[in-house]
Order: sequence, then structure tokens, then C-alpha cells
Amino acid sequence: MGVVNKISCDWKGKMAFETEMAGGIVKLDADERVGGENNGVRPKQLMLVALAGCTSMDVASLFKKMKAEPEDFRVSVESEMTEEHPKYYHTAHIEYHFWGNDLKKSKLEKAVNLSLDRYCGVTEMFRKFAKVTFEIIYHED
Amino acid sequence: MGVVNKISCDWKGKMAFETEMAGGIVKLDADERVGGENNGVRPKQLMLVALAGCTSMDVASLFKKMKAEPEDFRVSVESEMTEEHPKYYHTAHIEYHFWGNDLKKSKLEKAVNLSLDRYCGVTEMFRKFAKVTFEIIYHED
Repeated sequence: MGVVNKISCDWKGKMAFETEMAGGIVKLDADERVGGENNGVRPKQLMLVALAGCTSMDVASLFKKMKAEPEDFRVSVESEMTEEHPKYYHTAHIEYHFWGNDLKKSKLEKAVNLSLDRYCGVTEMFRKFAKVTFEIIYHED
Repeated sequence: MGVVNKISCDWKGKMAFETEMAGGIVKLDADERVGGENNGVRPKQLMLVALAGCTSMDVASLFKKMKAEPEDFRVSVESEMTEEHPKYYHTAHIEYHFWGNDLKKSKLEKAVNLSLDRYCGVTEMFRKFAKVTFEIIYHED
């Protein structure tokens, strides 16, 4: 049997909810246009944070092991929603940005591929409903 | 063309990342056992917050329109991960908890079903990789 995770969203009135979980509290809210007060993030967009966060932690863990740490690192995700209800993300483009001098590019590329092909469970989930693409972008001084 | 959402995870050293997005900042981190410092939430678990949050906001919006507001409301999600890499959630059980006296149960049940069947995009995504089940639990004084 696999690990079981459980979370709860507790209502805080109107469209506001809170989740207390390992590592912190996440506040959720809708924007004013749909009856919220913008005192928290949008739940659907957390799917994208889960995707970027999961693969970025894989890569950070791997480039440390490979002694290939960049000076800076960012992962961004851009996704398009379907037009009809229920609206879901049918594309996800992941960009891996690495900054530094003398970047160890072959190791960084290997780290990205290991995450996407073997370790990142969120990427695996996204592939079941979205077309997932990626690119690696190096920023050298 | 559907709405496009874009987010970034910015590296804060070791396994820590931050995402600035509409409604707030989400801090991500791993636990100490895997090289993190527990100063943020786990990215994969944000998938569950996205699910609980998306359907709970649908229901909160609907029970307001239906004049069927409970005294309190909580949505919890329990998911099991696969045992092999890449580890993903292959089950998701959603519990809708409503508290109050004289709960308008048929309206609340309708709100839950409308979310699950028509509006909740995150549920739609989960159905592509997980067995999704749900139950409604009333807590009357």
C-alpha cells in the first residue's frame, strides 16, 4: 500500500478557505468579481505550483548531488485552460531557467530529464490530461 | 483560445522555493529528511489542496445562491500514492462536511453534484489519473 495523504479545506466565510498542512498554512480565496475578497490564492492555479514545485525540487536535489549547482534557478509553468466547463489545463509548458557562469549544462540537462522521466509524480499526473512540453534556458553572464 | 495561467517557482536555496501569485505567496520546502528545512508546504500535496479548494469554492458559491448556507463547512481529501516512481495519487476520496441545525440537505447535495459533474475542473483532471469517490456528511446538533 502506498503512502496516504490527507488534507482539509476549512471554510472561513464567503469564498475563503484555509488548509493547515506539513510546512505551513495555505489560504485560498476567489477574487472580488466572483464573490471573494482576494485574501488567498486560487485553488486551480495550485495545480501549476504543484507541477513547477515538484519538478524543481527534484532538479535542486539532483544538481546538488551532481555538484552542478547554478547561481540561481527558476521553474515556470504556463498552461492553457479549456473553454468549456469543467475548465481544466489541457497544456503545460515547463521552462527551466538556470543562471551562472560556467554552467554544467550536461548535468543540468540530465537532472531535468531524470525528473521528467522518472521522479516527478506531478508531471506524471499532468500527462494524463495535458500535453506537457518543456525547455531549458541558460542565462550566462 | 482558453485562459492562460502562468506561475514561477523561484529558488531560495537548498530545497526551498517561492511562488508569488494572485492572492498571495506560496512557500514550498521539503522536510529535513530529504535535505529541506520544512519552511514551506510539499508541492505534491498542493494537488490535494487544489482539489478540495476547487470543489469547496463551487459548493460555497452554490449554497449561497441557493440560500442554503450551513453554519460551518469543510472539505477533506484523502489520497493514496502509488508505490513506484513516479509516485502519483491513484485514489482521491472527497468528504463534504456540513454543520448546522435544519440543514437544507437536498440543496447541499445538489450543490455537491453540480460541482463534481459540471464545474470543478480539478476534479475533471483528477479523474484522468485517479479513482475519485466522495461522500457527504451532515453534522446536526
